Amino acid sequence: MKGKGLIFIISGPAGSGKGTVASILRDTLPTVGLSVSATTRSPRPGETDGKSYFFITRDEFEKLVAEGEIIEHTEYCSNLYGTLRREVVRITEEGRDVILEIEVEGAMQVKRLMGDDVVTVMLTAPSASELERRLRGRGTESDEVIRRRLARAREELAYSDKYDYVVFNETGKAEECAALVAGIIDAEHVRSRRRRDFVEGFIRDLTAACENRE
Amino acid sequence: MKGKGLIFIISGPAGSGKGTVASILRDTLPTVGLSVSATTRSPRPGETDGKSYFFITRDEFEKLVAEGEIIEHTEYCSNLYGTLRREVVRITEEGRDVILEIEVEGAMQVKRLMGDDVVTVMLTAPSASELERRLRGRGTESDEVIRRRLARAREELAYSDKYDYVVFNETGKAEECAALVAGIIDAEHVRSRRRRDFVEGFIRDLTAACENRE
Repeated sequence: MKGKGLIFIISGPAGSGKGTVASILRDTLPTVGLSVSATTRSPRPGETDGKSYFFITRDEFEKLVAEGEIIEHTEYCSNLYGTLRREVVRITEEGRDVILEIEVEGAMQVKRLMGDDVVTVMLTAPSASELERRLRGRGTESDEVIRRRLARAREELAYSDKYDYVVFNETGKAEECAALVAGIIDAEHVRSRRRRDFVEGFIRDLTAACENRE
Repeated sequence: MKGKGLIFIISGPAGSGKGTVASILRDTLPTVGLSVSATTRSPRPGETDGKSYFFITRDEFEKLVAEGEIIEHTEYCSNLYGTLRREVVRITEEGRDVILEIEVEGAMQVKRLMGDDVVTVMLTAPSASELERRLRGRGTESDEVIRRRLARAREELAYSDKYDYVVFNETGKAEECAALVAGIIDAEHVRSRRRRDFVEGFIRDLTAACENRE
């Protein structure tokens, strides 16, 4: 009785633990489908086109972006990575959910392009001091690098009120945090606006049952 | 980090199992507070005023309704039963949630009076035929009684699109159904509009941390 799949976007500053939480969800929720991304980088040994990624040229990539067929993308080490609309549509029409772990700008664009079926979750460390501790814990970055990351975190958190949910990921509680997001996923499927067809069918059947007794 | 408590309303036709689901939630969720109702019926042996109910006269009751201090009420066997605003406010301000198991008309009124802190869940059997089976299973009611109950169920379900969630309670799955509602409760606490204060504090702290490095 789950109906169409939904698109869950998880964003959050570096140090929010969104990678871990998204992995737990993908590993534990049977209803999550895997959307294969497009990329302009070259395949590495062992990678298969259409399984690891769809490997395409920069020209093809840019054409797909222009056509709205790549619904969000990002550049990393001079390579483009993007989410294909057709992948997302295929999975959600099969009744499975898509989990996208993307930045705030991409999230806003997916929301604009895919509308009502998108649910956004901002994940973050529970406090600024804890976020800073996690960023420092990563290595021996200079104060300047830390400052840039904190400034970026602030930029990203400023989008929070455009998100549906804000979840604090406390240290050592990634499993609890994933369970909370799993609860959000289940809850979103039973929002009344997504159950209109079921309810209408139900009311029709009740009407018929009443009439049979008149 | 849970903030203020919320008011969760569970409604649903007779046969939806809402009583069982509400009991499971009250017994298992440590964050749920117990709101003591007001009633005009006489105390029974062993019942204490302010514990079982607040026992008041019909005049007092009607005065409280007129003043908006009883936020919803119903009449049963010539006695009035109602939810006191001060009870709900006391519990939610302590950071605990209130679960009200009330009819659709009362639910709409609580929503109107208590606004943003109210979350509504419509609970129902998974289909009209299953609902009818459950209503019949209750005893040896005449076709006319069954017809009236089905008509009332139809009336109640017609309110579904005014509810936030519609949850189907499948036979023998009250525990699963309660777990889903518990997920809704957790999710509603982390909706971004309810986390604005936390996020603003967070951003202030990040701003300070960035400035310390400039």
